[in-house]
Amino acid sequence: MTKIFSHQDIEALDNHYRKNFINSLPGLKPVNLIGTTDKYKQTNLAIFASVNHIGANPPLMGFIMRPVSVKRHTWQNIKQTESFTINSVTQRMYKQAHQTAARYPREVSEFEATGLDSWYSESGRAPYVAESPVKVGLELEETLDIKANDTKLIIGRVIEVLVDEKLLTQDGTLNLSKADAVTVAGLDSYHSNRFLEKMPYAKPDR
Amino acid sequence: MTKIFSHQDIEALDNHYRKNFINSLPGLKPVNLIGTTDKYKQTNLAIFASVNHIGANPPLMGFIMRPVSVKRHTWQNIKQTESFTINSVTQRMYKQAHQTAARYPREVSEFEATGLDSWYSESGRAPYVAESPVKVGLELEETLDIKANDTKLIIGRVIEVLVDEKLLTQDGTLNLSKADAVTVAGLDSYHSNRFLEKMPYAKPDR
Repeated sequence: MTKIFSHQDIEALDNHYRKNFINSLPGLKPVNLIGTTDKYKQTNLAIFASVNHIGANPPLMGFIMRPVSVKRHTWQNIKQTESFTINSVTQRMYKQAHQTAARYPREVSEFEATGLDSWYSESGRAPYVAESPVKVGLELEETLDIKANDTKLIIGRVIEVLVDEKLLTQDGTLNLSKADAVTVAGLDSYHSNRFLEKMPYAKPDR
Repeated sequence: MTKIFSHQDIEALDNHYRKNFINSLPGLKPVNLIGTTDKYKQTNLAIFASVNHIGANPPLMGFIMRPVSVKRHTWQNIKQTESFTINSVTQRMYKQAHQTAARYPREVSEFEATGLDSWYSESGRAPYVAESPVKVGLELEETLDIKANDTKLIIGRVIEVLVDEKLLTQDGTLNLSKADAVTVAGLDSYHSNRFLEKMPYAKPDR
């Protein structure tokens, strides 16, 4: 049976229920950790389920930043340094990744608090997560203000990628099954994955 | 072993490889079908891996539209009707969903071409995918132009949700494992999911 939620039904939902419900609608979302540092080299690490592909040429990725009316260390750091990293989350570390969502005071680094290791490349200014098999270094490219709810789309340009060699395939697609990449439903329900099939390029005549 | 792709390495990649590679960096992405109709009721259905949660109150979802320098039926239809649907893709139908990416002429509906069934609710103007266990009806809320690569973030306001009752849970999070929701790595590599764990709200003291 199908349950219909009308516009009025959705408005009438309890806040907690609506948050979980609306967050589940896009389907299973990728889980990533965004690493930053402030100008005094204090590191920050935060979990995001909104990281997205924006384009391949130039190589761009984006994520949604919630309203900055409350202090968002990730956003403050990106404004200061114009630099951040996006790091994949695996089955082995999703509990630690989830814990970065706790409201630690600014002087506490989520790296130390959760036991994840920070790691710096030669060129990057922002910290990577040593445990992540896919690490992406980005420079701030563009920020768009979403008027509808005072959030932002933050877009970075990919300037470096560090990837576990065993994930590389011949055509460039990463083997995210071998990476044990997790996804999340809503805010807190984690899922593992299993490879099904690589589909051919779609053409009208087949 | 870790392979490092520098800025120069990425620029030097073959176009096809780079497209697959950069599209894989966010991790496993949700797969959705966007249903629209033009003012003459000609339906269109297109697969998107960029559908995202924008906010719960008001309920907002977004997706990335590639440059409209070539004809994009989804975008033309949304401009005309200000209405669209987002429909979940399951293990049973991902092959048909993938096939909607073929460049059919405007007079061919991807519903007919792929064998997916269109379905209309009482209130909605845009077609839903009958087979999808999660169907979301939206009205165009906001369009943001991404200067960096001439793409757009299209944001819709959720005005209706139709969901298979067996996916509903007590706190509002949808059971996307029961839904057999699929994800995609890069452009064409589909994955199934398995539920791992629902994590508690993260607090600094645990």
